[in-house]
Amino acid sequence: MAKANLLVAQSGGPTAVINSTLAGVIHAAYRHGGAIDRVYGAVGAVEGILAESFVDLTNLPADFLDRLRVTPGAALTSARYKLQPGDVARLLDVFARRNVRYFCYIGGNDSMGTVAQLDRAAGDTGAALHVIGAPKTVDNDLAHTDHCPGYGSAARFIAMMIRDTGLDSAAGFRSTPVKIVEIMGRHTGWLTASAALARAGRPDAAPHLIYLPERPLTVERFLDDVARVHEAHGYVVVAVSEGVRHPDGEYLFTTSRAHDAFGHRQLGGVSVMLAHEVQSELGLKARFEKSDTLQRAFAHCASTVDRAEAFMVGQEAVRRAVAGESGVMVTLVRESDAPYRCATGAVDAAAVAGEEKRLPEACIAPNGVDVTAAFLDYARPLIGEALPPYAYLPV
Amino acid sequence: MAKANLLVAQSGGPTAVINSTLAGVIHAAYRHGGAIDRVYGAVGAVEGILAESFVDLTNLPADFLDRLRVTPGAALTSARYKLQPGDVARLLDVFARRNVRYFCYIGGNDSMGTVAQLDRAAGDTGAALHVIGAPKTVDNDLAHTDHCPGYGSAARFIAMMIRDTGLDSAAGFRSTPVKIVEIMGRHTGWLTASAALARAGRPDAAPHLIYLPERPLTVERFLDDVARVHEAHGYVVVAVSEGVRHPDGEYLFTTSRAHDAFGHRQLGGVSVMLAHEVQSELGLKARFEKSDTLQRAFAHCASTVDRAEAFMVGQEAVRRAVAGESGVMVTLVRESDAPYRCATGAVDAAAVAGEEKRLPEACIAPNGVDVTAAFLDYARPLIGEALPPYAYLPV
Repeated sequence: MAKANLLVAQSGGPTAVINSTLAGVIHAAYRHGGAIDRVYGAVGAVEGILAESFVDLTNLPADFLDRLRVTPGAALTSARYKLQPGDVARLLDVFARRNVRYFCYIGGNDSMGTVAQLDRAAGDTGAALHVIGAPKTVDNDLAHTDHCPGYGSAARFIAMMIRDTGLDSAAGFRSTPVKIVEIMGRHTGWLTASAALARAGRPDAAPHLIYLPERPLTVERFLDDVARVHEAHGYVVVAVSEGVRHPDGEYLFTTSRAHDAFGHRQLGGVSVMLAHEVQSELGLKARFEKSDTLQRAFAHCASTVDRAEAFMVGQEAVRRAVAGESGVMVTLVRESDAPYRCATGAVDAAAVAGEEKRLPEACIAPNGVDVTAAFLDYARPLIGEALPPYAYLPV
Repeated sequence: MAKANLLVAQSGGPTAVINSTLAGVIHAAYRHGGAIDRVYGAVGAVEGILAESFVDLTNLPADFLDRLRVTPGAALTSARYKLQPGDVARLLDVFARRNVRYFCYIGGNDSMGTVAQLDRAAGDTGAALHVIGAPKTVDNDLAHTDHCPGYGSAARFIAMMIRDTGLDSAAGFRSTPVKIVEIMGRHTGWLTASAALARAGRPDAAPHLIYLPERPLTVERFLDDVARVHEAHGYVVVAVSEGVRHPDGEYLFTTSRAHDAFGHRQLGGVSVMLAHEVQSELGLKARFEKSDTLQRAFAHCASTVDRAEAFMVGQEAVRRAVAGESGVMVTLVRESDAPYRCATGAVDAAAVAGEEKRLPEACIAPNGVDVTAAFLDYARPLIGEALPPYAYLPV
């Protein structure tokens, strides 16, 4: 079979390790020189393919790839573009004209829908295309994979953030006893739950309350919880999902009086609102932390496990494409918790596209404001090395 | 002279390295066993001394001190307590009863006022007390010292945060082209200026606009700036001080319509307000980052230079106390920029107490929204090792 070209693209929100997957794709493509001629990157995901905005990645030096592995953001730039009628045919046309037989698409839910559509259309038209999805999302909400590249690094940062700002609160509890830390993940609690990985070494360690989108919450319940923890420990560190909802189904932050007065949703989110409620209703000084895209982008705290797996997933996508597979997403398959071992597998991309994997009930503590040991066992290996041990004085 | 006890306390907001200074004090105290009997820590700064809430630090193992050096927060806990009439006499009384002849006070501006008052009162009453201040503040606003322990680590985190979230914005510019990053430092721009240390490797690197409290700002000027940068680069990353003010002297965030509608200052600060203005006035999607105490607490990004200097300052405070000095604050004295070399000195604590060192004019670019090479030369050595090199594709 004559050689053909490989195209790679990155879609959706960047992560700390999505470029590691890109580097894995490029690295593997170089090693399949018998099948692959040129390696192209699409600038701006599907929009870039439609515009034939390609960058040639065929001859990147090894040290460039080493640096790419640790660079956050998405080196090819991404886009959130919804496929329009006719787009699939136009994509196949671009692939044919540019002799692209292998397409690796790094992305989340929507991207896997695109993988499935392209594969189906290629089959229908007899086009020679092998399209493989490589998962990425800090939200960790893709079905049929143990976890998603990007999650472990964001979880690691969140655990570090909660631990260190928690110690800040423990030190300054006399003046500002309450801290509300807002965490990404609008629909699923995987990231918010990872705050629990911060706890170590002291019985009153943060976080004290974890509010997941899987559990409805009222401001009254929240204030009761905060008052109780304040009574017990003298300070309160709250990890709250940006997507936590009122029992009536509305996002909690839209139910505040502040929101009513202001008339729209741009108040800064649930942490601002809850800090305000603590101050006005409990008379306790409260601060909020809203590290926004930092949670998905902060490469300095990337999990070495996550970074290595992201690379592996990229390599595996190429291996499967060259082997003639198509329409699948590479998965991570956990083989063992202790010692942690993970291999790759594959699943029909169409099966991933429509689903959203929420935090299982077995991961949520009965009190609804904490996680279980099962979650900690699941998540701990994903964040890489143990957090450094700290020293606490008996104060 | 008979041996006496040493007391150490931590005041004000914690930093990533204030415990390194504490470890330096303890370490040096152990090495002055000829003069020092017990080593006590006051739990909760001046309040703790008045309540005689002491923890004995005399026999801590070496590995505990090693861990203390890297632990954020303030291990003794801090407090913001304003001295009341009679407090100084009561403090001297506690010192006399507990045979405390050496007092090391780790803190900022206000704490240096306490050092000066105690020294004066001890002189007036003939009390045998040697009180030495050890500087700490992420704000870097103490006079008569080249810089303050705590600043370098916060500046390093801020540079890393801007660089990584900047790449996130560069990757996602098609959907969300504007990011507003709010930075600590209500009165001085040292921390906000450190955002400029993020730039490296690409001509369009973030941050694009830096708003310092030393320069007044209107929303109109801000929107003009954002529109101009968006036109040039396609995305805009703004570093804005939480304390930036309107030309009329009010904090900028209190001048928004949002604030008027809501009727108080708890909206989440200037970044929320500016992101809202960008969306409503320019029609560009904007996000904001408000990492709050994380900026001062995040030990995982601490500057090795800062941590070592913090330790050195603690040791020096003990050395000077035992040598009979009193009423001074230890200073950092820069001896050379390249290679960076810094020694310790001392200054009258009273001279530090009343002053606030703002960012000098020579550090602010003529356009008012950037820093100068002089600032970069000043700040770069303080953040420790160079940030890791990244890889950029020509997209």
